[in-house]
Amino acid sequence: MLLNVGTFIRSATRFSPFIIPHSSPSSPSSFCFSFSPKQTVSFTLQSSQMASFTTLSQSPPKLLFRQLFEKESSTYTYLLADCSHPDKPALLIDPVDRTVDRDLNLVKELGLKLIYAMNTHVHADHVTGTGLIKGKVPGVKSVISKASGSKADVFVEPGDKISFGDLFLEVRATPGHTMGCVTYVTGDGPDQPQPRMAFTGDALLIRGCGRTDFQGGSSQQLYKSVHSQIFTLPKETLLYPAHDYKGFSVTTVGEEMLYNPRLTKDEETFKNIMENLNLAYPKMIDVAVPANMVCGLQDLEPKAN
Amino acid sequence: MLLNVGTFIRSATRFSPFIIPHSSPSSPSSFCFSFSPKQTVSFTLQSSQMASFTTLSQSPPKLLFRQLFEKESSTYTYLLADCSHPDKPALLIDPVDRTVDRDLNLVKELGLKLIYAMNTHVHADHVTGTGLIKGKVPGVKSVISKASGSKADVFVEPGDKISFGDLFLEVRATPGHTMGCVTYVTGDGPDQPQPRMAFTGDALLIRGCGRTDFQGGSSQQLYKSVHSQIFTLPKETLLYPAHDYKGFSVTTVGEEMLYNPRLTKDEETFKNIMENLNLAYPKMIDVAVPANMVCGLQDLEPKAN
Repeated sequence: MLLNVGTFIRSATRFSPFIIPHSSPSSPSSFCFSFSPKQTVSFTLQSSQMASFTTLSQSPPKLLFRQLFEKESSTYTYLLADCSHPDKPALLIDPVDRTVDRDLNLVKELGLKLIYAMNTHVHADHVTGTGLIKGKVPGVKSVISKASGSKADVFVEPGDKISFGDLFLEVRATPGHTMGCVTYVTGDGPDQPQPRMAFTGDALLIRGCGRTDFQGGSSQQLYKSVHSQIFTLPKETLLYPAHDYKGFSVTTVGEEMLYNPRLTKDEETFKNIMENLNLAYPKMIDVAVPANMVCGLQDLEPKAN
Repeated sequence: MLLNVGTFIRSATRFSPFIIPHSSPSSPSSFCFSFSPKQTVSFTLQSSQMASFTTLSQSPPKLLFRQLFEKESSTYTYLLADCSHPDKPALLIDPVDRTVDRDLNLVKELGLKLIYAMNTHVHADHVTGTGLIKGKVPGVKSVISKASGSKADVFVEPGDKISFGDLFLEVRATPGHTMGCVTYVTGDGPDQPQPRMAFTGDALLIRGCGRTDFQGGSSQQLYKSVHSQIFTLPKETLLYPAHDYKGFSVTTVGEEMLYNPRLTKDEETFKNIMENLNLAYPKMIDVAVPANMVCGLQDLEPKAN
């Protein structure tokens, strides 16, 4: 039944939206953002930062979007839902075990139906909330990339689309921080949010990037991932990382192409920077990675005692 | 000269936007959000949470919006700018002294012209960044309510409009946490962001509110302020508080009217709740309040040594 609301479609036609009939298309929740679905973005780049917009319109789908922060690991969790769909199907990206109750309470208050608990990668700094969520909300599917090598209900691959109501996320492979990192990007199309939003995990952080010295990391691969899969998105695309340590909440492709202190450099310089970070061994890695390889379930039994 | 970009207008006609001619209206920055300026919101409330929208369109002004977090005091600072205006006039709401350099660097990178550094009230938990900002960016005007009794370049009163480019904020008096608290609300009109956004300071927090036991606080007054000035805004209005301690970033009028554990109660119960919070004396109050009464300048001399 869940697959009637949110389905995975591996598609060659990247830009076709999935239209699921509405029973009440004109009754979106007041909790939702609206956006112009027929907005067409025509680029008249005057410099690398400038663009002009032309806007048309029709009855818009409604994206509900919430950014949630877990202070101890400085992790951002993202809640997205399609409020124009009668079921209000929702997904969580990078939930943290410690804040699962907060997140699920919010889902409940907003009247959403959580269908997916997704990870951008196997985190080393916190235990994912997906296992706890599955235990508390029957029917929720955990999602991670096939390349991560970890357990989940659904494995995604580059080019897959993750549909929730009439909205969808596109999966892009962005390995380099870990070998299985993906970036989830909101759909490209007339019925999808404009500007697009990309959930970059640790591949790209605001004015930074994830480390590349464990979990199959590779600075060469990370450089290629960001330049080919993220910096090729429209410059106004909003980038939402899995972490921020300085109080920033969002950036854009255009900003990072100009101001990212690592990724604006050439590949060789980037490699040298990454090789000389001299970072401490991640204190949570020995607990978090084994747990996250099985949806964050490893420690549930001892924790309950 | 600054007043040609951002001006204060005390106005009886609450909803008239201030149109300032553009020299290049079709060249907004790619860093900006766009919104549908001719979007008209018609309420067909099916329950207290539901509304339907009708959207028309024209060339939109562009709001750049950033939420910034200061971890030590859990304070949110907000950056707003009109990117469709050639000068990209910007303002900061509730800047913190510790994060001024971060904020000003972002303003510079985004190519904005900072014109106002504003406070929602005289904070007791952190020193405002307005004094430091004025020292670092000549021409910036500090803004606070007249009712706060503190020093600033510009004093605002209820009904005032604070214009930055073609966008504006409306000032609403929301005393009760302090006697001079105001809420800044984005304009109501066809050329202003939809949904509206309200910066509530400590009057309304997400599922909470500011304490009322010092600085001329009054639970009776706070109750009245929130119910008459915030809960009367459209239910989809986005509410951005000055603090959050649980990792939430935004709420809506509709949500708080349903789920705020204090302000959904009757006035007598609210008063009892506020009188029995048994909160500790604020550790920063004796430093922060005297400094904030003079734009956060009091301690600058000793700090520089």
